[in-house]
Amino acid sequence: MSIKNVCVIGLGTMGMGAAKSCIKAGLNTYGADISDKALADLKAAGAVKVAKDAREFASELEAVIVLVVNAQQVKTVLFGDNDNGLASALKPGTIVMVSATIAAKDAQEIAAGLQAHSLEMLDAPVSGGGVKANQGAMTVMAAGKKELFERMQSVFDAVSGNGGKVYNIGEEIGKGASVKIVHQLLAGVHIAVAAEAMALAAKAGIPLDIMYDVVTHAAGNSWMFENRMKHVVDGDYTPLSAVNIFVKDLGLVTDTANSLHFPIPLASTALAMFTNASNMGLGREDDSAVIKTFAGITLPQKK
Amino acid sequence: MSIKNVCVIGLGTMGMGAAKSCIKAGLNTYGADISDKALADLKAAGAVKVAKDAREFASELEAVIVLVVNAQQVKTVLFGDNDNGLASALKPGTIVMVSATIAAKDAQEIAAGLQAHSLEMLDAPVSGGGVKANQGAMTVMAAGKKELFERMQSVFDAVSGNGGKVYNIGEEIGKGASVKIVHQLLAGVHIAVAAEAMALAAKAGIPLDIMYDVVTHAAGNSWMFENRMKHVVDGDYTPLSAVNIFVKDLGLVTDTANSLHFPIPLASTALAMFTNASNMGLGREDDSAVIKTFAGITLPQKK
Repeated sequence: MSIKNVCVIGLGTMGMGAAKSCIKAGLNTYGADISDKALADLKAAGAVKVAKDAREFASELEAVIVLVVNAQQVKTVLFGDNDNGLASALKPGTIVMVSATIAAKDAQEIAAGLQAHSLEMLDAPVSGGGVKANQGAMTVMAAGKKELFERMQSVFDAVSGNGGKVYNIGEEIGKGASVKIVHQLLAGVHIAVAAEAMALAAKAGIPLDIMYDVVTHAAGNSWMFENRMKHVVDGDYTPLSAVNIFVKDLGLVTDTANSLHFPIPLASTALAMFTNASNMGLGREDDSAVIKTFAGITLPQKK
Repeated sequence: MSIKNVCVIGLGTMGMGAAKSCIKAGLNTYGADISDKALADLKAAGAVKVAKDAREFASELEAVIVLVVNAQQVKTVLFGDNDNGLASALKPGTIVMVSATIAAKDAQEIAAGLQAHSLEMLDAPVSGGGVKANQGAMTVMAAGKKELFERMQSVFDAVSGNGGKVYNIGEEIGKGASVKIVHQLLAGVHIAVAAEAMALAAKAGIPLDIMYDVVTHAAGNSWMFENRMKHVVDGDYTPLSAVNIFVKDLGLVTDTANSLHFPIPLASTALAMFTNASNMGLGREDDSAVIKTFAGITLPQKK
């Protein structure tokens, strides 16, 4: 039987989008977050129940999607201070889909913790941003037992069925996390090199709107260049995804590479660029603000 | 009056594509190359005249597209050993469209040399690869006098009118070259980081065909990742564009950045990766072979 009762933990941009997509798809949707505003927003959108602590309705759930920021938050939500978190309150057999961006090692530790409570885990990071999450068009990179994919089909249809895609990376917990880590390596370096290229163009006296137009119509384009350098051309660094997110994610990338004894020269350089941007006080600006680490250039101002 | 008689110098992948697109568009097309095979091929496709040395029919030409490999070759073709090259044989007012990837400084030197023969120059690098050149869908990044753009409209329609685009970067010679340099910075780093990411995926035990599929459907994608990592998944390093091309182009990028006193941390790292690949004997393989510089992984073999 496919899942009907699902709870999203962490109602940020991605989590809120995922939860609303579940409501639209007709699932009995629950939500948990520390923000009263987010809870009220989801309740108004048609959630069955919302709460700051999902233990309040844990016994009603068949699946949980955990979309908090990092591994530490995942562990706190599920296991609390003394194994008294949500995991202790869920019915045996409930599926916990861990969708935060975390290291493979953390995914394996979390799986072991869940197994102690007879809970099932999908190691299933997501990608696509808030807009796609809201449209039910997320990309899901999932590892876990085959039968879990079947039971989760209704949830996958809800969050990805409208133009997204669910990848089955295999049974081994940690493989989903690793695929996301490799993806973030590309995403982070693409933003940093987009900034480096536009900074060089500015130094060479090339109008940045023309440079943007050329690149987005040629083989030098990337999804991130096209998305983020628009912010630079417009001089608008309102954060959609902040510099500090890539300090965190490229940190995870380098941790993962180090644990595999593997060199990643470009990602290591990009991490240094984002870290420097953060130390310049730009951590909460849009990640494209990494371009401001290049001195001696004049960038477009917001109109 | 728009140009009718045009000659392409350098019938490699891009030049041959451009010349054939001119023929298809009904222009009187001439061609020059050191390869007998290339000349025979273009003649069979409908060229008016072909020769190893374009001076043979220089007086019949209204425009020349120079699509050789580097600035030195451009200078040799146009000025020979003692200013006795093609420039000395062309009619005054003939337009020379310099489309090799060169530094802004070289573009300016070439313009001065042409001016001494009362010839006009368009500083007009191109992008898109052989397939697009053949379809008449090249991207052209051109700087030069406004009137030259009008006279060259027939040629631009031929080489770019079928889905490509011509950018007018302004009047200043060198700006076209600089735009291409910035573009190559992105292209080169995107190939190198694609290799770095796929190498890390291989080390982490992720099947590369799945990794490829995920990235090409998510925000970590780039034009180069999608195009080049297919070669890695297939284990086929037949050169479409060789490692040594990016040793050359990223060398131009770093020369340009140095002359502007500007740091390019990612492109400098990527140049080191391609140079190392070349020193490993991979210079003539497809540029995706830069992934072979990563030791300790097993890559897909050609079926």
